[in-house]
Amino acid sequence: MNYRIRLEDVARAADVSVGTASKALNGNGRMTAETRERVQRTAREMGFRPNAVARALIQQRSFTIGLLTGDSYGRFSMPLMSGISEALVHMGISVFMCGIEDDPELAKVHLDAMLEKQVDGIICTGKRIDRQLPLSTEGIPIPVVYAFAAAPEGSVVLVANDEQGATEATEWLLGLGRRNIVHVTGPESFHSARMRAEAYRMALGHNGQVMHGQWSEAWGHEAVARLWAEGTRPDGIFCGNDQIARGVVDALRERGADVPGDVSVVGFDNWEIVAAATRPPLTTIDMNLRELGREAGRLVMAMASGEPVEPGVRALPCSLVVRSSCGGHRAAAPEAA
Amino acid sequence: MNYRIRLEDVARAADVSVGTASKALNGNGRMTAETRERVQRTAREMGFRPNAVARALIQQRSFTIGLLTGDSYGRFSMPLMSGISEALVHMGISVFMCGIEDDPELAKVHLDAMLEKQVDGIICTGKRIDRQLPLSTEGIPIPVVYAFAAAPEGSVVLVANDEQGATEATEWLLGLGRRNIVHVTGPESFHSARMRAEAYRMALGHNGQVMHGQWSEAWGHEAVARLWAEGTRPDGIFCGNDQIARGVVDALRERGADVPGDVSVVGFDNWEIVAAATRPPLTTIDMNLRELGREAGRLVMAMASGEPVEPGVRALPCSLVVRSSCGGHRAAAPEAA
Repeated sequence: MNYRIRLEDVARAADVSVGTASKALNGNGRMTAETRERVQRTAREMGFRPNAVARALIQQRSFTIGLLTGDSYGRFSMPLMSGISEALVHMGISVFMCGIEDDPELAKVHLDAMLEKQVDGIICTGKRIDRQLPLSTEGIPIPVVYAFAAAPEGSVVLVANDEQGATEATEWLLGLGRRNIVHVTGPESFHSARMRAEAYRMALGHNGQVMHGQWSEAWGHEAVARLWAEGTRPDGIFCGNDQIARGVVDALRERGADVPGDVSVVGFDNWEIVAAATRPPLTTIDMNLRELGREAGRLVMAMASGEPVEPGVRALPCSLVVRSSCGGHRAAAPEAA
Repeated sequence: MNYRIRLEDVARAADVSVGTASKALNGNGRMTAETRERVQRTAREMGFRPNAVARALIQQRSFTIGLLTGDSYGRFSMPLMSGISEALVHMGISVFMCGIEDDPELAKVHLDAMLEKQVDGIICTGKRIDRQLPLSTEGIPIPVVYAFAAAPEGSVVLVANDEQGATEATEWLLGLGRRNIVHVTGPESFHSARMRAEAYRMALGHNGQVMHGQWSEAWGHEAVARLWAEGTRPDGIFCGNDQIARGVVDALRERGADVPGDVSVVGFDNWEIVAAATRPPLTTIDMNLRELGREAGRLVMAMASGEPVEPGVRALPCSLVVRSSCGGHRAAAPEAA
């Protein structure tokens, strides 16, 4: 079944050569105005779509960006894709996303497909900022930007500023008068967990108490059980993600500790589905992944246009989203994800 | 900045015409074996990537499928994309996903980009099966399959079998000896909510008690509060989604009702992040969205290959995933998402 109208079909119908048809549609070459109009009218009537790659070969622009993601859950990649799309759609540029999971073969098929379609640039994203994707972008002849993923030396990389986000969270608790603040977070093997813990210690001005475990609600429950068992009664708990925070809040309620009356709890991620459903709803740090996406889109197109872009890691600011789990209010509500 | 090696660069380096270079690389046309090899070697050495659209014009195949999604959260679209990819990657076919949110303009930009890139087919997906996407695929000259989205009359459509899933859930509760079973679900305006409620009534053999509200944990809490206020004490609750089920389970625990000792609770969706974190973890219905994606991929490629595919709605089976919120065990564990 041949669904497509080809350039040669247009040429035949307009009674010109394929070369003339091509030139007529691309607005170049020498021919009479009558011929040019006849070809263009015929193409329109037949529903011919100008060949994007032929156009790209002339303009050196394909008007598409490829997004390769190792995040099969969509947790990080979907807001990122929205942001990229938002930054580029007014230029008529589309974002094509391919999920590569953790599979090098899948990654290669999809990367090759993107290169064959001659996308203008590629953005790579993952689930954590210290893990490289299972693919090599070395020697790729188009711009590559890494957003929320580890990258080879000399790459252009965008991440959320873990230190600044964790500092804001801790300072928010301190500002509310909390003094016995514990940090319950994910595995120490995660770069983000280490950075956030370090920023927490810096903001406190002493070592505090850092508890590493899983990125899960279950760990939030267990951490509170351990604190209670050892007789520790914190008045503030800074959690490494919203799932942990949700477990912590539930565990505190079950022990009769009032949140935020007795204990202020702050999360990290502003993952709406978890943060808003927690009782009380979580005050948390938003990584502004949409804005990260917008910046990645702007950077990759700047590179594609030949503008000089310095390699290196750019850390974009996080912001505190105030709900009810800490008490306290903000004068002006910060942007939510 | 010109990043790309063009066919004419290869032709110049190999000292042949562009036409001869094209034929050499496509393996057709008449020339000496020496010339063909020289062109191919030159192309390889220069890192030339054969132009995908030029190949597609010859083969009428582009080896890509476009996935347009209105689900900006990734909840439904990410497993679907994995399934499509899984079904097609062994054929070297890539899936390019574009998020169109609820924006007709965005939808048009992305659909046009896919058509210009001459994808072999398009799969459209959304957040609910009774809502059309903000785009028209009428007159599109390539195959279109709708998966988990409403479609115009005469389309090829894939959905999860809501009736069968809800029947399995209700029969599971009945099989455990539960007789006073309530259904707590989402808004009646959702086709899925109506179908599931109808199947629940059919399986019970009487009208039961159907409570429509929001697709949220908060509604699960409120529904239990209402039941308790009116003196109803169900021994089974079938929830329209996992978020409602999670609210129901938490609300029951807070009233001292044991799950599953006193009340068996079953959810719908098998949304891991919610279902597995519920205490106890939820027994729930899995819509098998990955398999839905695999089938969508197979169908769209069959259509692209000219195989006859009947229009109409295909409802794929759901399956019960047994965890702990109902009691009871399955002999063989069903496939989890």
